[in-house]
Amino acid sequence: MTKKHNIILQPSGRRGQVNEGTSVRTAARELGVDIESICAENATCGKCIVLVEAGRFEKYNIDSSRENLSPVGTEERAYLERRPKLLQSKGWEIGQVRLSCQARICGDVLINVPEESRGNKQIVRKSAGNRAIEVKPAIRKYLVSMAPPTLERPIADWERLAKGLETSMGLVRGGEENLPRWYDFEIDYACLRTLAKTLRESKWNVTVTVRNDREVIAVQAGYHEDSYGAAVDIGSTTVALYLCNLRTGELLAAESEMNPQIVYGEDVMSRIQYAIEHPDGLEKLHKAIIATLNKLLKQAIKSANISLRATAKRSPTDEEAASGNGQERHRHDIKADDIHEMVLAGNSTMHHILLNLHPRDLGLAPYVPTIHRSVDVKAREMGLHINPSGNIHILPTIASFVGADTSAVILAEEPHKQDENWLIIDVGTNAELVLGNRKRLVCTSTPTGPALEGAHVEYGMRAAPGAMERVHIDENTLEPKYKVIGVEGWNTDHAEFAGQVKGICGSAIIDAVAELFRAGIVDSRGKFRKNLESKRVREGESGWEYVIAWEQETSIGRDIPITQQDVRQIQLAKAALFTAARTLLKRSNMESPDKIILAGGFGSFIDKEKAMLIGLIPDCELDKVYAVGNAAGDGARIALLNTEKRSEIDAVARTVERFELPTDPEFQNQFMLATSFPHMSEPFPHIAHLIPKRKADPLAKNFMKGKDA
Amino acid sequence: MTKKHNIILQPSGRRGQVNEGTSVRTAARELGVDIESICAENATCGKCIVLVEAGRFEKYNIDSSRENLSPVGTEERAYLERRPKLLQSKGWEIGQVRLSCQARICGDVLINVPEESRGNKQIVRKSAGNRAIEVKPAIRKYLVSMAPPTLERPIADWERLAKGLETSMGLVRGGEENLPRWYDFEIDYACLRTLAKTLRESKWNVTVTVRNDREVIAVQAGYHEDSYGAAVDIGSTTVALYLCNLRTGELLAAESEMNPQIVYGEDVMSRIQYAIEHPDGLEKLHKAIIATLNKLLKQAIKSANISLRATAKRSPTDEEAASGNGQERHRHDIKADDIHEMVLAGNSTMHHILLNLHPRDLGLAPYVPTIHRSVDVKAREMGLHINPSGNIHILPTIASFVGADTSAVILAEEPHKQDENWLIIDVGTNAELVLGNRKRLVCTSTPTGPALEGAHVEYGMRAAPGAMERVHIDENTLEPKYKVIGVEGWNTDHAEFAGQVKGICGSAIIDAVAELFRAGIVDSRGKFRKNLESKRVREGESGWEYVIAWEQETSIGRDIPITQQDVRQIQLAKAALFTAARTLLKRSNMESPDKIILAGGFGSFIDKEKAMLIGLIPDCELDKVYAVGNAAGDGARIALLNTEKRSEIDAVARTVERFELPTDPEFQNQFMLATSFPHMSEPFPHIAHLIPKRKADPLAKNFMKGKDA
Repeated sequence: MTKKHNIILQPSGRRGQVNEGTSVRTAARELGVDIESICAENATCGKCIVLVEAGRFEKYNIDSSRENLSPVGTEERAYLERRPKLLQSKGWEIGQVRLSCQARICGDVLINVPEESRGNKQIVRKSAGNRAIEVKPAIRKYLVSMAPPTLERPIADWERLAKGLETSMGLVRGGEENLPRWYDFEIDYACLRTLAKTLRESKWNVTVTVRNDREVIAVQAGYHEDSYGAAVDIGSTTVALYLCNLRTGELLAAESEMNPQIVYGEDVMSRIQYAIEHPDGLEKLHKAIIATLNKLLKQAIKSANISLRATAKRSPTDEEAASGNGQERHRHDIKADDIHEMVLAGNSTMHHILLNLHPRDLGLAPYVPTIHRSVDVKAREMGLHINPSGNIHILPTIASFVGADTSAVILAEEPHKQDENWLIIDVGTNAELVLGNRKRLVCTSTPTGPALEGAHVEYGMRAAPGAMERVHIDENTLEPKYKVIGVEGWNTDHAEFAGQVKGICGSAIIDAVAELFRAGIVDSRGKFRKNLESKRVREGESGWEYVIAWEQETSIGRDIPITQQDVRQIQLAKAALFTAARTLLKRSNMESPDKIILAGGFGSFIDKEKAMLIGLIPDCELDKVYAVGNAAGDGARIALLNTEKRSEIDAVARTVERFELPTDPEFQNQFMLATSFPHMSEPFPHIAHLIPKRKADPLAKNFMKGKDA
Repeated sequence: MTKKHNIILQPSGRRGQVNEGTSVRTAARELGVDIESICAENATCGKCIVLVEAGRFEKYNIDSSRENLSPVGTEERAYLERRPKLLQSKGWEIGQVRLSCQARICGDVLINVPEESRGNKQIVRKSAGNRAIEVKPAIRKYLVSMAPPTLERPIADWERLAKGLETSMGLVRGGEENLPRWYDFEIDYACLRTLAKTLRESKWNVTVTVRNDREVIAVQAGYHEDSYGAAVDIGSTTVALYLCNLRTGELLAAESEMNPQIVYGEDVMSRIQYAIEHPDGLEKLHKAIIATLNKLLKQAIKSANISLRATAKRSPTDEEAASGNGQERHRHDIKADDIHEMVLAGNSTMHHILLNLHPRDLGLAPYVPTIHRSVDVKAREMGLHINPSGNIHILPTIASFVGADTSAVILAEEPHKQDENWLIIDVGTNAELVLGNRKRLVCTSTPTGPALEGAHVEYGMRAAPGAMERVHIDENTLEPKYKVIGVEGWNTDHAEFAGQVKGICGSAIIDAVAELFRAGIVDSRGKFRKNLESKRVREGESGWEYVIAWEQETSIGRDIPITQQDVRQIQLAKAALFTAARTLLKRSNMESPDKIILAGGFGSFIDKEKAMLIGLIPDCELDKVYAVGNAAGDGARIALLNTEKRSEIDAVARTVERFELPTDPEFQNQFMLATSFPHMSEPFPHIAHLIPKRKADPLAKNFMKGKDA
């Protein structure tokens, strides 16, 4: 009998057992992960590069090691030796990199498939909102012209510049002693080092970049109008970066990447665990995120320059011509050195790892962050590739599991300025909730698991081409129809649809579970009914399941079902989220919020009626439920463009009250009640008409209340 | 005929031509530079290590290279391969290091003899003064005890500490909005990184080091009373470091080293030139000084710990016992991390090189520094091995050739608080002069050449054992007597004196020239008289000379003369100094200063009467001439111990008026007149009685005025 070994593929989380001797690329394809190759597996194109991660992975109960792959052969070695720069630029170790078409499995392995090798590139659905932000940046530029020094007036370069800057800024003498204002100006040390050269090369005409009207952080020869900054939301799964013009507020590029820390753990708890268990764990996690931020910066600069050049080439519109803008606006390419400021948001664990602070105490009772208030660090100290004198501003954390991402969400949505009580839910692997108004804000958080994002679901996948994104089940025939990302319309609409489906993404899972419940296929406890007249409801390998797509409809050549286990995952996730919301409402003596705001990419794509039907969110008027997209990213952008907003959110974050759910005595009880659809003991008047009235459902009478009343 | 090659030995500056095949150690000994060896030149002890510097040395007109020494042999290679750590710790490159007993000369070489290899270790005479300094350091320590976090009160570590610190500092709420004061506290990023661990390990009892009552720069477990700081004066020749207790002001150790930049040029102009001509010149100079500062820090910590341990061991005095001090005071050894602050002074070139600022424009008209105002940089940015969160404060510069050393001297001597007009002269390779009182201060500088420090004088040497330090010549017999460093009394007092003299140091050169003039051996123009009845006055190889020590009195087996060329060197140096002083006096409409203050090691050892006799300093009452030692070092210590003094000197430095001598139209003319002893056109009433009245002196009548009047 052929020996079998475990293989785990990251970041998708796909896992399985494969025969000894199978190539990594083949094994991956068998598990639904496409890896590119254009050389017909001849070890020459390098498109199929993968990374083997060495170590014990408790979660999967495997010991992965480089020796568990066949030794590097002649052709593979030849390829790798031709590309030292590629490896170096990615920060990959030579022994860690394999060509997946060559490496054969001879033991358990955890394989990381880098983005460039993936057959289907991710579409990350977080996109920057377009809300109006008042532009009051920390960074301003001033043109300063000076008389050159002479033997008679040999005043030093800095003092000459500072005096000139005072004039350019239009400052007047102040203070009791009537001292010149420029005495208070400061210059960043790295900037000072190039000052003498720049002043002389520019013939004493320079553009000075000033931070907070006080610190000179750049001096450039000649005239430069624009300053640039980057806002970043570091999610556990996705990192999104927005490159902005700090003068105009214009969004120049939005780029995103998977969070590379995912190979060390899918959720924050497992990454904290990884940092605790490995002496170099924090260092690895920290370096991984810094490298990704630098990659995103590079990509964003490239994208921005491409579109700026395109804008510059085309003829100006009448309006642009009239305003003198348009063609003339973008004469220079943006360089990394032109970016002078970054603002970052992320949950507390991402925040700590970013700052190279050990996240240990975030994960151990009493769950304490190292710092709440916002942190400012020089770019060069963080190793971020913007101007080395630039400032990195990291938004404040609120609690151990309510991080700088929630601060950013608050800044974007402004519940602290409302009369109404708003419930803001930022859904991710971890969900953070904020409830309240101008008088009081309370917050909490709960792990929801990765099910809501399509992971840990049998055929779950991220939102990418081939992923099912909408599901409808006819309650009479029990037949489904579905939509797939990248394909127009419903699958029942046209024939060429067949063979397109690969898996189910987060929004379709909510849809599917809600539809299973609405159609009476699962009961309010989440159990499959067994005597239904449909061949789609069947007992599969791992229990009862409902087949959404038959083998021939898919690109993977297998039936795609929703299983009992999948339903169970969704129940646990939604119960956690609901209980957290209920706890906040109770602590605030409220029955229901005036408005529900769903933040995060996930919230933008779920059907809010179906989310309410399964009890993912509390009952509320449906037109009072809003999805606002990546509000954390928006908040980071707001803080980037408007420096006053930074003190505002620092002050608000200090006043938000935090509740840790495990300390709530009723938590376990509430959680159990909340696992039912939509809830064991709460009426859901706004979606009651959707709740099936089957007598067979032992709990159905509870749900009828709302509708019959 | 045997080929001859040039060898230059640094830092002594000794040079000569030696036969091809001579070992470096032998060549050095021939030129008066002792190099240690305890293995009888068997390449095993390594005491004779030297460094060969590669490159073009314009000043000596040689191209030095590693290939101009014999290849490394088996024994030498074996030794060097045994000691990789030694080489690494010194920052020496493997190819640069040679054993001088093995390396034979086969071409021109510039050899650097490191301090550890020198036969006679330097005694650097700069020593810290003992003036009273009010202790108001930037750094203070506070003991903070906190309640540990709980699930109910999970406030973050930093906020918990900051609140506790507010209490410990006894601060009350302030400001209009009545916000807690701790909102304004900041924490250094490097310090933040270890905060969580330290708080928990200490069980929430820590000592917090705060800078300027605002920035937390260190958190240590438990109670720590003392903070430490270092003050440094970077001279072109000598670097002196003082380690102080910032709480008590106590001086714990004073260490000094040769400035290692000396191999790149003896004076500031040649170092500026080196930085201009070599692409990596600045980097080399900068790294050299940083390495030396780190070496001095290490030495000072070691010395301080040795003496603190000695103090701790002995029984406490009654007084100490009564005060509870004494034995208990020094329980912990000082570590590099305990040093939280450094203050540095140095001339503008040393200042720029220290900060890694290119010194180009200091040396090119219109002679402009990059910055006047004081600079604060984190220790970790400078690569200085104190606490990485510690601050490096560099005192302000006044002009291109009046640097932070002069700022320090002003701070130490406080001319800006006097009614009298003081003339302060800081004598070194470059001399800086400040004149004035509380109403007005003017300054200038002049290169004096290295002659005043014993270099560029035929048998000149630095103040070290074996150096002649005092000279007296009987005006009737023309016979000399002298004193030697390290030997008691005059040479004429006892017989065992013979064989001790090696050379002449700075103070003895002034003595000797003054005595040659007083005894009528040289005339007021500095020319040797040729018809004198003394075999000591003779025509030597390079012109007329006066033999101070006969061959048999010396350890080098050669007569030691003062030559016409030596007298000329002193004339040029003193003319420059005198003209600078006269220019300042004239610009301030003064005839003479009320007081003359000689700063710098040199000033402490010269005979002020003889200095006046040769016209090195202007005429003045002799008891109004003071030598204050290393005032620059004292000023740096004052700024280290008292943070208010930093703003004081920043403000004063801005008001000092600078005159560049070359822009003075009368400079050349004045300089020529000032080359005579004591001066061609000025009366010197206070030393007129010492001026010889020989008729043969064509100019003597001028000098008589003062005495005869």
